[in-house]
Amino acid sequence: MQPTVIAPSILSANFAKLGEEVDAVLAAGADWVHFDVMDNHYVPNLTIGPMVCEALRKHGVTAPIDVHLMVQPVDRIVPDFAKAGASVISFHPEASAHVHRTVQLIKSHGCQAGLVLNPATPIEVLDWVLEDLDLVLLMSVNPGFGGQSFIPSALDKLRRVRERIDRSGKAIRLEIDGGVKADNIAEIAAAGADTFVAGSAIFNAGDYADVIGRMKAAVQGARG
Amino acid sequence: MQPTVIAPSILSANFAKLGEEVDAVLAAGADWVHFDVMDNHYVPNLTIGPMVCEALRKHGVTAPIDVHLMVQPVDRIVPDFAKAGASVISFHPEASAHVHRTVQLIKSHGCQAGLVLNPATPIEVLDWVLEDLDLVLLMSVNPGFGGQSFIPSALDKLRRVRERIDRSGKAIRLEIDGGVKADNIAEIAAAGADTFVAGSAIFNAGDYADVIGRMKAAVQGARG
Amino acid sequence: MQPTVIAPSILSANFAKLGEEVDAVLAAGADWVHFDVMDNHYVPNLTIGPMVCEALRKHGVTAPIDVHLMVQPVDRIVPDFAKAGASVISFHPEASAHVHRTVQLIKSHGCQAGLVLNPATPIEVLDWVLEDLDLVLLMSVNPGFGGQSFIPSALDKLRRVRERIDRSGKAIRLEIDGGVKADNIAEIAAAGADTFVAGSAIFNAGDYADVIGRMKAAVQGARG
Amino acid sequence: MQPTVIAPSILSANFAKLGEEVDAVLAAGADWVHFDVMDNHYVPNLTIGPMVCEALRKHGVTAPIDVHLMVQPVDRIVPDFAKAGASVISFHPEASAHVHRTVQLIKSHGCQAGLVLNPATPIEVLDWVLEDLDLVLLMSVNPGFGGQSFIPSALDKLRRVRERIDRSGKAIRLEIDGGVKADNIAEIAAAGADTFVAGSAIFNAGDYADVIGRMKAAVQGARG
Amino acid sequence: MQPTVIAPSILSANFAKLGEEVDAVLAAGADWVHFDVMDNHYVPNLTIGPMVCEALRKHGVTAPIDVHLMVQPVDRIVPDFAKAGASVISFHPEASAHVHRTVQLIKSHGCQAGLVLNPATPIEVLDWVLEDLDLVLLMSVNPGFGGQSFIPSALDKLRRVRERIDRSGKAIRLEIDGGVKADNIAEIAAAGADTFVAGSAIFNAGDYADVIGRMKAAVQGARG
Amino acid sequence: MQPTVIAPSILSANFAKLGEEVDAVLAAGADWVHFDVMDNHYVPNLTIGPMVCEALRKHGVTAPIDVHLMVQPVDRIVPDFAKAGASVISFHPEASAHVHRTVQLIKSHGCQAGLVLNPATPIEVLDWVLEDLDLVLLMSVNPGFGGQSFIPSALDKLRRVRERIDRSGKAIRLEIDGGVKADNIAEIAAAGADTFVAGSAIFNAGDYADVIGRMKAAVQGARG
Repeated sequence: MQPTVIAPSILSANFAKLGEEVDAVLAAGADWVHFDVMDNHYVPNLTIGPMVCEALRKHGVTAPIDVHLMVQPVDRIVPDFAKAGASVISFHPEASAHVHRTVQLIKSHGCQAGLVLNPATPIEVLDWVLEDLDLVLLMSVNPGFGGQSFIPSALDKLRRVRERIDRSGKAIRLEIDGGVKADNIAEIAAAGADTFVAGSAIFNAGDYADVIGRMKAAVQGARG
Repeated sequence: MQPTVIAPSILSANFAKLGEEVDAVLAAGADWVHFDVMDNHYVPNLTIGPMVCEALRKHGVTAPIDVHLMVQPVDRIVPDFAKAGASVISFHPEASAHVHRTVQLIKSHGCQAGLVLNPATPIEVLDWVLEDLDLVLLMSVNPGFGGQSFIPSALDKLRRVRERIDRSGKAIRLEIDGGVKADNIAEIAAAGADTFVAGSAIFNAGDYADVIGRMKAAVQGARG
Repeated sequence: MQPTVIAPSILSANFAKLGEEVDAVLAAGADWVHFDVMDNHYVPNLTIGPMVCEALRKHGVTAPIDVHLMVQPVDRIVPDFAKAGASVISFHPEASAHVHRTVQLIKSHGCQAGLVLNPATPIEVLDWVLEDLDLVLLMSVNPGFGGQSFIPSALDKLRRVRERIDRSGKAIRLEIDGGVKADNIAEIAAAGADTFVAGSAIFNAGDYADVIGRMKAAVQGARG
Repeated sequence: MQPTVIAPSILSANFAKLGEEVDAVLAAGADWVHFDVMDNHYVPNLTIGPMVCEALRKHGVTAPIDVHLMVQPVDRIVPDFAKAGASVISFHPEASAHVHRTVQLIKSHGCQAGLVLNPATPIEVLDWVLEDLDLVLLMSVNPGFGGQSFIPSALDKLRRVRERIDRSGKAIRLEIDGGVKADNIAEIAAAGADTFVAGSAIFNAGDYADVIGRMKAAVQGARG
Repeated sequence: MQPTVIAPSILSANFAKLGEEVDAVLAAGADWVHFDVMDNHYVPNLTIGPMVCEALRKHGVTAPIDVHLMVQPVDRIVPDFAKAGASVISFHPEASAHVHRTVQLIKSHGCQAGLVLNPATPIEVLDWVLEDLDLVLLMSVNPGFGGQSFIPSALDKLRRVRERIDRSGKAIRLEIDGGVKADNIAEIAAAGADTFVAGSAIFNAGDYADVIGRMKAAVQGARG
Repeated sequence: MQPTVIAPSILSANFAKLGEEVDAVLAAGADWVHFDVMDNHYVPNLTIGPMVCEALRKHGVTAPIDVHLMVQPVDRIVPDFAKAGASVISFHPEASAHVHRTVQLIKSHGCQAGLVLNPATPIEVLDWVLEDLDLVLLMSVNPGFGGQSFIPSALDKLRRVRERIDRSGKAIRLEIDGGVKADNIAEIAAAGADTFVAGSAIFNAGDYADVIGRMKAAVQGARG
């Protein structure tokens, strides 16, 4: 079993003092920095790009930066994020007609590659590319739209993908993003996730260490 | 003659501590905050969106935020920026088939409206919409591409647009963006600009107040 | 078993007297009004939009209006059709990268939501969204192109989707569109369809009540 | 001076009984039928396509049908409208990179060709194609968006284009669309328009003949 | 078992003397001419179009010309290639929302129809259209990008598709494209391919007949 | 006055023996090779790409290769053509929102840069970029569509652009493309063109040297 990763999404952080915010969550026990990129085309919102990623590296962040590209097309921006310090780059198969090629492109720039499945995306998209991936990210809300709760069918989807990853024998992380909180993370972990994105659940908490600690404990308990 | 406006482009600021950076340039004499939005479609780069604008307002920034949309299409994101606290919203006519409508849309959300001309864009695009504008922004470099110098023909373009604005009798600002520095701002002001975007010239300077002071003095001198 | 629904497609009606035509088919026993929307992008034809839907409601039509969106993108026009009086809104998964989100959007506007499968679309697109749907529409011809006959493999596809719907235990209608006539509707019903779109088969008939009556009888017979 | 043409826009008619509506306005003195086509891409609305045009011809309408294409791209749908009975087909230069070619295409299908200028579109788009046109349509509101009033600068634009048409010596109609009413049509005619689109001003009036009569009288008066 | 087809890709030929090159490979035992069409949109390269195909026919080439469309959209160019002398036309399902329709379109122009699967494309895209196809082309490299080796998972994919074709009982060719050489063609044939595209492996060889001969012998051996 | 350039368009050559064809026209007195690139997006045809250009260079062609890009977008393919041996690269302003930037991009790759005006394109597109250009290409037919004759208004357009070029004092070539023949080239030259593209007029002639000779003599005569 791979170690648990808690990846706070900085979309919920205070962008006026982002370095300080990221330092704080990492000090509080977070493992990765989750970085949501929206281009106002793949999703109807525009967030942050490579310059912000690079600023975090220059600020001194050494933790893995986990870039989730909600952009279309994908390929042109991949080298920019690699150069800006991204560790993992994930993308949506709907946004690239050449999924295998995009995975190779990410790896050729020295990053780990992930594929992201929207809530309704069939898992058959993994059939011929799973073994080339470092990470599968399942969306448990619809990306790019606010105010949503964890979609229950994601639990079954996690179990199905976990089974495939285990069968492959590869060290592929299974990440979940959307509506993850301290009080539902145990059942999410039990369904097979090992990497957990959380935004407001962490940044809106008064005490980052407390909530991250409770999340890790709940995951630990679920794996018992 | 309208008062001079110096608008530092925060693309050159440190995104890890953006609130502090913006506070500092404003304290140093800057008048507006220039906010460059790129969507990886109208230009091949992706920068920052409404959430970052909103964070500056929550941080306490009260100065005008001057949003330059290098995005296509334009209309969908206009209300997002208005809600996030933008004061002026400018866009490119190449990015909207309905220039007059987009101007009205911006105004209907309580913001001032600007039109941006790329270095090669004919000034005839202003013919039937100038009097509805609050600002004309002339690009003296190509937007979205780094490392460029001030394009000399922009001086003549400034003179031509200044003449049109004066003829209109309206209070329309004439802004210039690209390669503006303390040592060329005088001739740019002499050509008719009253609002000056500067990025690295300000944020790469050791002393923000010094460089902004020298810029303002140079403009003052040019206007004699 | 759900009750049979006959849904005449008004694309085959006389647009010069659409209200009268719709009144006539409803009086003749039709259950729903099928409303085909083409945007000249998702398919190479442009038909009718929300204003025509609204006109039918104002004319006094109270039967369900079953809107089939052959448009891309989908989301922007959904609220327009909801406001114009649509009862069911169906769309193609190829036309929306966010299928789950579009389903929620339709429902949030008070309409029922359907997903439409082109003749070659794999049924795996239903895997993670079927239980959120009110209707599945299988195309037995290619949408947007005239003069086609019922594609025989649609019968097997109906059986496969019927099985899934039954397994779900949900009240999800199974609609078929393309080449449905009085003389093949029995085998189509036997394969699992409960909602039948027919255009020229109804509107080109001299006696609407006669053809709709024969269709319903044939379905009844098939269900035994 | 060419004779006056009043062209009611059927977007304001009752789509449930379109044939009857069109018969009524023509009987009341209207000269042309104005047919607004929107594709939900060039403008954010979708209206009516070739089938509705064809239905009017089959219904017995013999008056010129004046099709205004608010679609992008333009060329594919031109033959469909020609076949459906269009008399004039107009399009926007923003929607076709090959304006001269599209004009030739329309003519090669036996229709008259028009070019439409949005409120902010420079009139230089006419420079090299004016003499090939049968009609210039100036928009005095933004196409595709409801609830707008006549944009005053359209009067000056009319004068500028009228001068060019007169100088060309060609029989090119000058049409205006947007906010035209019985009480402003005189000054619009005085500025040079000879063809007048009106929607709600006609169809919302109790007595079509009365309003059309007043419009024609006002135009007559303006021409003195 | 269908007879082996060797289809040299003329992308590796000398375009300055293409007729001579094609004559030479055909004389050396090649069966088909493989013709790779890229449009700089579906893939980031632009190669050759219908005129080059037509030139080969006029030059006297009578062998089947096997056109692989790496273009998006697909339908508009199909009649051009049919008219230019194409024998087989294959396309990617990602590039056409109406896969079944595009297959029918190709056939209606008198050509055979193929579907191409990218390395990561799920084979479920064949579920409802396989029996209408004349050919399935599996990509064993990513189309449109140079310098790649045969992707090993393509062998398993070949076996899976071969099984489906055999089960269908139809005479559908199974073609492979990417990294095919004389020294790996045996295992590729053993996995189920019967039609082999090779570019540099043939055109960079000093003796076309020798390499084609060795390829055919290896396939023969594998089938033994 | 700059020397006359005759640039045969190889779209009219025999693609089965392109090297030989190009050798022949150059031996017959042609000065440049005109290379028409269509991508099936900016125009509805797809012709030839960088590989064909490179093949001509490898074949030994040393004359300038004059690449006319009828593609959209433009920038991505520019470096490919520069690397393939292009001498001049021209593009359409409608196809690039960043005209000035694209010109710089072409030059930065060591090529000369041209801007192409469609028959209806206003010459104001030259206002702020003319002095950066090496060539202006006026289309006297619509690009991408066959079987057209020289559009007469192109003569006046030539005179207008010639005047601007002369006023600039720069060595900018003025090229004309479309319907140029030995019997109209004199008046075209008299209107100001110095560079002449001809396709079928040359390649369909029995004797290349004869027709090119007559063209040059006619130009010489026109310049008197």
